[in-house]
Amino acid sequence: MTEHDGRLTVVGLGPGDAATCTPAVLDALGAATDLVGYGPYLDQVPASVGGTRHPSDNREEAARARAALDLAAEGRQVAVVSSGDPGVFAMASAICEQLDDPAVRDRWADVDVDVLPGVTAAQAAAARVGAPLGHDFCVVSLSDNLKPWAVVEQRVVAAAAADFVIALYNPWSRRRPWQFGRAMELVGEHRAPTTPVIAATDVGRPGESVDVVELKDATALDVGMRTVVLVGSSTTRVVERADGRTVVYTPRHYPAGT
Amino acid sequence: MTEHDGRLTVVGLGPGDAATCTPAVLDALGAATDLVGYGPYLDQVPASVGGTRHPSDNREEAARARAALDLAAEGRQVAVVSSGDPGVFAMASAICEQLDDPAVRDRWADVDVDVLPGVTAAQAAAARVGAPLGHDFCVVSLSDNLKPWAVVEQRVVAAAAADFVIALYNPWSRRRPWQFGRAMELVGEHRAPTTPVIAATDVGRPGESVDVVELKDATALDVGMRTVVLVGSSTTRVVERADGRTVVYTPRHYPAGT
Repeated sequence: MTEHDGRLTVVGLGPGDAATCTPAVLDALGAATDLVGYGPYLDQVPASVGGTRHPSDNREEAARARAALDLAAEGRQVAVVSSGDPGVFAMASAICEQLDDPAVRDRWADVDVDVLPGVTAAQAAAARVGAPLGHDFCVVSLSDNLKPWAVVEQRVVAAAAADFVIALYNPWSRRRPWQFGRAMELVGEHRAPTTPVIAATDVGRPGESVDVVELKDATALDVGMRTVVLVGSSTTRVVERADGRTVVYTPRHYPAGT
Repeated sequence: MTEHDGRLTVVGLGPGDAATCTPAVLDALGAATDLVGYGPYLDQVPASVGGTRHPSDNREEAARARAALDLAAEGRQVAVVSSGDPGVFAMASAICEQLDDPAVRDRWADVDVDVLPGVTAAQAAAARVGAPLGHDFCVVSLSDNLKPWAVVEQRVVAAAAADFVIALYNPWSRRRPWQFGRAMELVGEHRAPTTPVIAATDVGRPGESVDVVELKDATALDVGMRTVVLVGSSTTRVVERADGRTVVYTPRHYPAGT
């Protein structure tokens, strides 16, 4: 478009602690002239990283994506900042949606777009307790902002019936207080009441909490907007170690005849 | 056990390029007196990392786990090295299985065990093409070494029927030449022939290849032991950009009535 072709890189900071943010992402942040993202995520970018920061509200993803692409079309080096992995329920799809929109996409024809992955919340939560995602698993968002609740229910039931471990993102919000309980109820139709359930909030950040309970007690968990919930399969096991730590893992083997 | 309590840390190197290995993992490798892992994974650890290297064959995971725990029980600082995320079809479960085995676990009662997550192959592959994992997805290993093939089929069908994006690990081996084709056939019973399928091999390593085809042509893909395959959902879209690059993404919205 001009002699100064812009670039947009969608980056994931990982779960929260700087030690889990990849060098590739730190390099992209360092090279950026502009950082675009939800305010609290931008606040996690080290203060030593330069570039103009453009914080936005969490609900403005499409507008934020267009603004970021416009900056890049002007020749800027733009980093779009997500927490976790930008490819998992985050900004990478929002950017791609704009690149796919025939009403606007020609504006950004000359913008290079790249995505740099990061460790997502489910992986960080799993690592804290052992290896609950060590066998086949599903990742489902419980939010019905962007998909019908009937689809959420259908997917939770399918995952439970096929004995996947299930990672639930967005399990709760003020506008959706009952959906998590309903999801646990649906899982319980296919899974024993003693199935391990892990609720992990703010892993790698101040105030981290990781709780392990049985499915029958899951609705008593303190589940919030920044919680990820992992529901074990029929083979997921809990080990109490001598030092008092609780290990949760899913074996690599799956038995015949179950 | 002794005044020198040992520690075992299970680490994931990420997909292959050093820029995607987290600082936490690099720190753990640097602190290790002993590195245990499948030979080719140990070869990815930077030569500057000290410590005695104990390479093993890929099929000896239980024996490798016990050997690593024994070293830690002797007071060594042991890093067990996986590629990708050690919590996803990798060594973290193998270690936890040993901690759960009443015949042997008391030997390691005093060993501190930690898991450090990494970016797994499906995330690296997704980032290369855009955001195919941007909506609900499943992760399934096609290997029937450790679970009955009937269970694999049941899970692929459940994931396809519930319209999950599907990430397939271990899609092929010399001993399992037909399973990938069968999985594509099963998906095809629930998904359009034009559904995008991505085959990514050695992402971030020399010889990286990433191919995007339609489901009807998926069996012609060059799928090997180090390939991860991503199968789109009904909403996954392909965008051909002006610079010739192909973007594949799954929108954040899911329509009602589908």
